[in-house]
Formats: sequence, C-alpha cells, structure tokens
Amino acid sequence: MARGRPQDPDKQLATKQALCQAARELLELKPYRSITIRELAHHAGTQSAMVSYYFGSKEGLFIELLEQSGNRRQQKMMMVAQQVLAQPNQALTLLVDNLIELMASEPWVVKLLQDEILSQESKLRDGFLSAIPQRLKTALSALLGQLQQQGILRADLNLDFTVATLMSNILFPMLTEPLMSHVLGIQRNTLRSEAWKQHLTQVLTQGLSPAGAAQ
Amino acid sequence: MARGRPQDPDKQLATKQALCQAARELLELKPYRSITIRELAHHAGTQSAMVSYYFGSKEGLFIELLEQSGNRRQQKMMMVAQQVLAQPNQALTLLVDNLIELMASEPWVVKLLQDEILSQESKLRDGFLSAIPQRLKTALSALLGQLQQQGILRADLNLDFTVATLMSNILFPMLTEPLMSHVLGIQRNTLRSEAWKQHLTQVLTQGLSPAGAAQ
Repeated sequence: MARGRPQDPDKQLATKQALCQAARELLELKPYRSITIRELAHHAGTQSAMVSYYFGSKEGLFIELLEQSGNRRQQKMMMVAQQVLAQPNQALTLLVDNLIELMASEPWVVKLLQDEILSQESKLRDGFLSAIPQRLKTALSALLGQLQQQGILRADLNLDFTVATLMSNILFPMLTEPLMSHVLGIQRNTLRSEAWKQHLTQVLTQGLSPAGAAQ
Repeated sequence: MARGRPQDPDKQLATKQALCQAARELLELKPYRSITIRELAHHAGTQSAMVSYYFGSKEGLFIELLEQSGNRRQQKMMMVAQQVLAQPNQALTLLVDNLIELMASEPWVVKLLQDEILSQESKLRDGFLSAIPQRLKTALSALLGQLQQQGILRADLNLDFTVATLMSNILFPMLTEPLMSHVLGIQRNTLRSEAWKQHLTQVLTQGLSPAGAAQ
C-alpha cells in the first residue's frame, strides 16, 4: 500500500475531493449498492487502493459524503433560523422556500434515502440518519419552539409531530416522483415553482379551509 | 401442463386464493424481487406450475393482488365519500381518519411502494400506479371538488396539489418509518393514534398558525 500513497498534502486533498465528487456523480446514475470501488477510482482518475487508504471502505467514502452534506445543511439551517426570527410574520413562507431549496439541492441525498434507507437495512442507515435528518430535526425543533413561544405557531402543537408535518409536505412529493408525475402531473420542476411554494405555505399557514372557518 | 391442472372450479378458486394469500404474506417478510415462484407455491401448498397456469407469471400474480386491493380501496373510498358529503362540516376529520386506516390497512402495499416503485424502474410500476394511486386520485379529486363547490374547502385550491398534500401528510410518515422512529420517536402505532389524527386534522383544517392569524 505504501508505494502508491501520495505524499503531497495538496494532492492528497485533491484526490479525496475527486473521490467524493465521483461518488456524488455516480449516485445520480446508479444505486449505491451497484457502485464499485473500481468505478469510483476510475471516475476520479485515481487507483482503487486510494478508496480504502482515505476512507477505509466504499461505505466510509459515502459516510464522509453524508457528513459533508450534513454540515452544509446545518450551516444553511442556522442562516434560515436567523432570517425567520428576524421576520417572524413571514416564518412559514421563509421555511417553505428554504426547506424546498435545501431538500431539492442535492438529488443524490433523496435517491440514497429511497434506495438504501427506506427499502432495506442498509449499512449506511445510521450514518445517514445522524448526518442529515437528525441534525435537521434538532435545528427545526429549536426554531419551531421559539416561534411557538412568540405566538407565531399554535401553542398546542406537538413539536415532533410538526417537524414530521414539515418533512411530509416538502419531502414526500420529491421522494415519490414517479407517483407525482404519472398520477398527478406534478413534475420535479413543479416542486420548485412559485405556485407550489405558495400552495404549501397557505396549507401550513391556514390549512385547506376558507379563512375563518372552523371544524 | 394439462396433467396437474385442477378441474373442480371450487378447487381452482381455492388455489388462486391461496397463492394470493401466500404472496401477501411473503411480501411482509421479504422484497418482491426476492420472492420465488417455488416459494409462492410451497407457501400456498400447491405446485410451481400453478403460478403460471393461473397468473401467467410471478408478476401477473402480484398485479392481480394489486387489482384486488385497488378494487377494495375504490369501494371503501365510495363509502367514505358518501359519509363525508353527509357530514361536510366534519370533512377533514373523516378524511384523515379514513385515509389513515386505508393506507395503514395493508402494510405490504407500502412496502411494495418503497421497494419497487420508488427505488427502481420495476415491471410492476405501471400496474401499481393504475391499480392504487390512480384510482385514489380519481376518487379524491371528485370528492374534493364537491367540497370546494360547497365552500368547505378554499376556492383557490389546486385540486392536484391538494391530493398531493393529503397523500404527503398521511403517507409520508408510513413510508419513512425508520426516519420517523429513529429521528422523531414516532412509531408505527403512533400513526394510528388519536393524537396523531387530531394533529393532522388540525393542520389540514387551520394550518400551524393560531386561529385567526394571517400571513
């Protein structure tokens, strides 16, 4: 192993980044379980041995990818929270817009959720859950709790249920793309349109009933 | 093939039903693609040749299963629609309760959606979509349109978006069970609890904001 190991730190970083980039690109073409170490190395222009040298295993490389994405998302969520708390009367509009962008920005994360987390007991499951949804849950719960204290959200809301509701409304249509497009004519780009964002904001703000109606 | 073919119509029906029952039971244990014709026949107490005799193929047997479920659901939705139109002021409560029961009643349908429809181009996709969500969409759109005309639902709602919203809120938590349980502590039985049904009804009726608030 020692022979092919690159010594130059810049080159090491470049190789690691090329492997991460290759992993992201290959995930858009095929499922995680079909991607081989050989393909990853070839796609990144390096040798297969570099995958285990830098990441321990193929799994380790993808966990690293998830951690990087989790960090970016966490930073983004901190900015969103600041923005929302600065304009609490626009809270749900801002949350819908930003969560849609956040969840749609990396289609490979949604694919991994479909392929590895929902349909089987994958080795990636724990790493996925702690890197992405667990951190989103922590950030959202804190923000929703503050909005609840300010009277922007109903006092009787269960916060875990409310996080589930936000995820349901925003993520379900992205996750069930064949169902949305074939059955409802709602395409991937519809889910980033103003009409869809406005629909979700209104549902989350006032529900489906006319203003002032009560059940 | 002709030799083993049962001639008695009652026995024929019993064999077909046993194979359908075996298919449902095996789906709760393993993914569609891992189920073999041999296992289906063994589980149903018949010979492998009966699968192709009655259903043409393994795929044909599962399509039949989906059609049967689609028929039951369609009948159920007709009853739900009658009930809702008889008590329009309880429309969203009744819809939430009944849609939760409908979607939770056959866990194998949710598993099939996860395993075959969302994560790959399965041969079952078209059969699945036309048997289950397409018919649900037709029934729901008609009902929601009537409720809209009666002023129970907002006049500005896009009906396709509204069907997507109902499916999102009810089906997403069932579909993402590992995420819900590990990250939010929301278990499968929580999703049939009164607290959860009440949460969803309130969200769909008045949103997340306090009554009377506008954004």
